[in-house]
Amino acid sequence: MINILFAGDTAVWDEYAPHLRSAFDALPFNADLSRDHAADQVDYIIFGGGETPLKDFTPFTRAKLVQRLWAGVEDIVGNDTLNMPLARMVGGGLDQGMVEWVTGHVLRHHLGMDAHLNGQDGVWRNDVTPPLSRNRPITILGLGALGQACGTALAALGFPVTGWSRSQKNVPGLRCLCGADGFAAALSTAEILVLLLPKTPATESILDAAALEKLPKGAVVLNPGRGGLIDDQALLQALDNGHIAHATLDTFRIEPLPANDPFWPHPQVTVTPHIASATRPDLAAEVVAENIARGEDGKPFLHLVDRAAGY
Amino acid sequence: MINILFAGDTAVWDEYAPHLRSAFDALPFNADLSRDHAADQVDYIIFGGGETPLKDFTPFTRAKLVQRLWAGVEDIVGNDTLNMPLARMVGGGLDQGMVEWVTGHVLRHHLGMDAHLNGQDGVWRNDVTPPLSRNRPITILGLGALGQACGTALAALGFPVTGWSRSQKNVPGLRCLCGADGFAAALSTAEILVLLLPKTPATESILDAAALEKLPKGAVVLNPGRGGLIDDQALLQALDNGHIAHATLDTFRIEPLPANDPFWPHPQVTVTPHIASATRPDLAAEVVAENIARGEDGKPFLHLVDRAAGY
Repeated sequence: MINILFAGDTAVWDEYAPHLRSAFDALPFNADLSRDHAADQVDYIIFGGGETPLKDFTPFTRAKLVQRLWAGVEDIVGNDTLNMPLARMVGGGLDQGMVEWVTGHVLRHHLGMDAHLNGQDGVWRNDVTPPLSRNRPITILGLGALGQACGTALAALGFPVTGWSRSQKNVPGLRCLCGADGFAAALSTAEILVLLLPKTPATESILDAAALEKLPKGAVVLNPGRGGLIDDQALLQALDNGHIAHATLDTFRIEPLPANDPFWPHPQVTVTPHIASATRPDLAAEVVAENIARGEDGKPFLHLVDRAAGY
Repeated sequence: MINILFAGDTAVWDEYAPHLRSAFDALPFNADLSRDHAADQVDYIIFGGGETPLKDFTPFTRAKLVQRLWAGVEDIVGNDTLNMPLARMVGGGLDQGMVEWVTGHVLRHHLGMDAHLNGQDGVWRNDVTPPLSRNRPITILGLGALGQACGTALAALGFPVTGWSRSQKNVPGLRCLCGADGFAAALSTAEILVLLLPKTPATESILDAAALEKLPKGAVVLNPGRGGLIDDQALLQALDNGHIAHATLDTFRIEPLPANDPFWPHPQVTVTPHIASATRPDLAAEVVAENIARGEDGKPFLHLVDRAAGY
């Protein structure tokens, strides 16, 4: 019998527990999933976040792994009491959901869809033909699992895709750049820019006034990554002076985004409520079960976080 | 020297002539493109349509081919004076443009994008997670070049795609149905229905009240095909009684759609002005040049219309 502690609020527990139990039933050992195991009896910790009192990992003397239920770990990665491996969610529906949101909003802006949705007034406006995808360069900042999946999907639709990452990556079908020179080059062609970097000290406000200036005039910014990647004041200024045509934002420094935030009423901003990539409980449970099975088999864990890099 | 007659209005001529001339320059013979060759001296006719007086093809005694500049031929296929082969445009940017419009609007409806675009009011609505693409079945009526290209692109994004056509087709990755039984089955699972059939007597009002009833409740209809495929009154009724959630229509029985048409102000209808698939002059010119080169080489023409079937 292995003991699995679920650390997360009641809403997350209610959503995930049935799926986790189903996934554990298929494992070749008995797993006891509970919210209140004695700390020194816990073998694995599933960390869902939300209103959990779990801040001190010291008492979990025999636990082998903390498994995050979603991709971001910025609220736990710096916890000094955490002396065991930390895995984040990769897969679990995150990639596919993100591909659908990013592809949908890229095509929305590419096709000029808003003008038609807002122009149901009886006037037949067929004088502007958008370019084909092959003539609409897109840049993705961040080439982790999500950035690679989105870049590959957009390239398959014919878009020329540039990807930028901290260290050089090689993704088939994408132009891959890295470093400071690569950053300027990646921005300079980005008619649509997609932010999919992790939130770390190195990426804090990476899209600041200087970076926004490097984008071509009329560029569109999509941020399904993390709110802290953008200098909000610089973005508002670039929208107001017309350098940036539109921003579609799914993540924010404070969530839910306060009702009086200037992004809400801005005519060139679309707010979506952190829905771009939701972990799907059934698929995520399979990922968790696989990682626990690997631990019991003595295999290396998947999706481990590099604590120094912060993701 | 071969003589190529351009039959089409001035706007189309101005748009296409430079691209056609460039494409012809690459051919191994001299081509004289003009709007006023003597009829009995014409080797090929490029038929752009619009306000052209060309209704009688009888005087074109030596012409080898009429090449349409776009996909639809319903205004010429029944012309009894046309005794030479008729080719329609396939490729030329049509497929790619259609894939982009269809994929974009499928994702728009799949993601519930309109609710977010219309909900920029400071209220954070993140309680509805759309299903992943794998759980959103789509049906495409029509598996010609455009239907196949769209179905393949949607399947690559993870959607289960059913395709229906008059005669049985086999498209990798799609469930292909045909005939009357297949028609009912194809409609019964279509959470999003895409109409990409040609306009023929057999497809006139194919989406009538009986067909609409076969769709699951809450289905969305996309019509980038031809206006005549839909019984407009039946569609309006199905929208009003809630059986159909939304219709995004790009083609109409009368175009431009009259300003007083009930589709314009309908809250569940999006009108787009026949932009889903525009022939791109540079790419279309290459297709025309290739077909003329084949004619001069004695090879069979590409993209010939089956005059009996009507497409």
